[in-house]
Amino acid sequence: MAVPTPDGYQILNSDRLITWLASLPDLAARLGGKPADWQVEEVGDGNLNLVFLVRGPTGGLCVKQSLPYVRVVGESWPMPLERAFFEYRHLAETGRHVTGLAPELIHYDAAKFAIVVELLAPHRILRRGLIDGVRYPDAALAVAEYVARTAVQTSVLAESFETVFNRAAVFSRNHALTRVTAELVFADPYHDHPRNSWTSPQLDDLVAEFRQDSRLKLAAARLGHAFLTRREALLHGDLHTGSVMVSDVDTRVIDPEFALYGPVGFDLGAFVANLLTAYFSQAGYVRSEDEQAAYGEWLLSQVAVFWQHFAQRYDQLWQAQTGGDAYPAALFQDPAGQTALALECQQVIASLFADTLGFAGIEIIRRVLGFAHNLEFESIADADLRAGLERQALALARRLLVEPGQFADIDGVIAAARALTQDRVAA
Amino acid sequence: MAVPTPDGYQILNSDRLITWLASLPDLAARLGGKPADWQVEEVGDGNLNLVFLVRGPTGGLCVKQSLPYVRVVGESWPMPLERAFFEYRHLAETGRHVTGLAPELIHYDAAKFAIVVELLAPHRILRRGLIDGVRYPDAALAVAEYVARTAVQTSVLAESFETVFNRAAVFSRNHALTRVTAELVFADPYHDHPRNSWTSPQLDDLVAEFRQDSRLKLAAARLGHAFLTRREALLHGDLHTGSVMVSDVDTRVIDPEFALYGPVGFDLGAFVANLLTAYFSQAGYVRSEDEQAAYGEWLLSQVAVFWQHFAQRYDQLWQAQTGGDAYPAALFQDPAGQTALALECQQVIASLFADTLGFAGIEIIRRVLGFAHNLEFESIADADLRAGLERQALALARRLLVEPGQFADIDGVIAAARALTQDRVAA
Repeated sequence: MAVPTPDGYQILNSDRLITWLASLPDLAARLGGKPADWQVEEVGDGNLNLVFLVRGPTGGLCVKQSLPYVRVVGESWPMPLERAFFEYRHLAETGRHVTGLAPELIHYDAAKFAIVVELLAPHRILRRGLIDGVRYPDAALAVAEYVARTAVQTSVLAESFETVFNRAAVFSRNHALTRVTAELVFADPYHDHPRNSWTSPQLDDLVAEFRQDSRLKLAAARLGHAFLTRREALLHGDLHTGSVMVSDVDTRVIDPEFALYGPVGFDLGAFVANLLTAYFSQAGYVRSEDEQAAYGEWLLSQVAVFWQHFAQRYDQLWQAQTGGDAYPAALFQDPAGQTALALECQQVIASLFADTLGFAGIEIIRRVLGFAHNLEFESIADADLRAGLERQALALARRLLVEPGQFADIDGVIAAARALTQDRVAA
Repeated sequence: MAVPTPDGYQILNSDRLITWLASLPDLAARLGGKPADWQVEEVGDGNLNLVFLVRGPTGGLCVKQSLPYVRVVGESWPMPLERAFFEYRHLAETGRHVTGLAPELIHYDAAKFAIVVELLAPHRILRRGLIDGVRYPDAALAVAEYVARTAVQTSVLAESFETVFNRAAVFSRNHALTRVTAELVFADPYHDHPRNSWTSPQLDDLVAEFRQDSRLKLAAARLGHAFLTRREALLHGDLHTGSVMVSDVDTRVIDPEFALYGPVGFDLGAFVANLLTAYFSQAGYVRSEDEQAAYGEWLLSQVAVFWQHFAQRYDQLWQAQTGGDAYPAALFQDPAGQTALALECQQVIASLFADTLGFAGIEIIRRVLGFAHNLEFESIADADLRAGLERQALALARRLLVEPGQFADIDGVIAAARALTQDRVAA
């Protein structure tokens, strides 16, 4: 039985897509030539949507359409089409702040729930590049820049509260995907739920242990409460390495359909977590031990680059603001005030660091024990090997969640990750 | 020049009010008799609105109407009429949680921006009762109950995030009064602004000192940021002793027109602050020293009653919840989980306590150095005497804001307040 959809909605295919694009002169002009010359390829590999790449003689477009159900599950899990609207609004609201760090928004069709953005080529998904052992020297830095800019510029640090409250009200209607996060990220992995899966029976003991671990569950719930109540800035909402496209010289953050106002550490933690799972998965790949070690160290270095660049830019961007309703500029114009504000900024960044560690722990756990797993672990065929690496990741995740105070700085996190993998080598 | 108003809006007077009420059968029936029998009295003594008490042979009504400007200033400070809508929505949303602790909502007229609630008689404004030295044994306890219930029941501790986000989106449009708070409470008193006033020249030195005090300004700004970003629960938004009506046996919280989602400590701090200003003002009244001392001690005891009752009830009400999206019940069903959740609740209450102290400091400062002053100080004619008492209040406020960690519990706050007034007696 088909999931009911509103009038005017039809699932796109190649023919329908070409007919539609041909009816839009600006878009047709970008592609160039005639519709018969356009090549369409469906490439969606995420959990939710259709994604088409369209290439014409003079240019390309990428078209993303919501399906009325979760693609990876099928019609048995209906999912409102409106998620395309929130992705479109996020691209529209953040575009001027992150030019060159996100795809250019070209068109939105409210009836088709379809977004048209620039075609990114020769980009690929960062996660796949990392699985292949490719180094992208600027990727982590670019994502950090993206988070710093959106975190400051969409907040009451930079804007009037009226502007921020109005925008937050729009994104607070992103119920369907926020519910996915509330349940799949913050609840399901910590109790018995049919959507969960894990490498079994290898990790069964750890799953049982986690579900008995009140400190762990409490830390997860505390962050879940923060996720639902702290409206610090407009978040991407799903900032893993599958939401980043890279070429050798360019990095773009894509897919902000989970967008909502929330704690900045949620985006930061998601990206850190996925760099860490890439690191822990290294021993699952057929490379020389030297290659594995060197690439693993490069991945860890990118964790540091990511955090440090974020911290530096957040500091700079905040202190350059004068128009926000929070920390009103009129109170801090004297030299003593400027100094005090600079110290406060460092304190806020320290607090964002603690949040980041916690949310990173949450993200690792849900990617190993919950519904949506990470390809870098999933593509390790040997279940014993995979489980051993997942166990390392979970051990770090638990410490990040339960004992974040153990980590004085990002180097402490990196050292802990390294120690966990070396334990294994030594064993 | 009159401030422009929408079609259908007309400032009410006695005749218009009677004609209107006569057209509403349910309301006319409450009043009983004929319109010619109804008595109308305009009693608004706040800063913003018209308030009419209407009495008929069989019952009474209270009608509150927004004016298109700030009443206490006049048409030179226009103020959107929509504040009546937010007060109405707050009464409607919280009514079932605080039956008997707030006036019953009877009617709302969207075109007139007028709310009709039950007539509270023989109630009077708590602030005026306190100025007269009257003891209301249950008032602080009832207000604590009101805050505990609204804090838990309107939050993601008790409700789905969809319900909470939808409600928060409505109240996030309460721009005009939220702007009043953002500026008059969190910004103006800390820099040179024409809306400020204080007992001058007596307090000029302290005003200059505060505006140079980076730690103080930073603490104020940090709480201002929390006020604008932390959506913990639906707040009253202006919970001072002028927003509470009391009789010997009944207490009602009125006037939630500043309603918004925000940090619970903001409401708690406002009430604590106004009990403390009542305490500090005691030596300004012509009573025997014994009477002053005894009444002052009673006021301080109510600070403790207020906090302790809130803490106890917040704990009970939270732990009785099973339907909220935060701290999902499914994670904490085992005995260890129950114990952990109980400890977490105590930690959250400790954090609310710290917030309460900070927001109390903010409220005291803005009531002494900002735009809207407290009658208990204002009615002390002797400026030197008044300034001396205000100085005590400001000294405590500064400590609450800058060094909240000094206060292990509410008794510590009370001891500090007592010590400040005894210093003066000794001097």
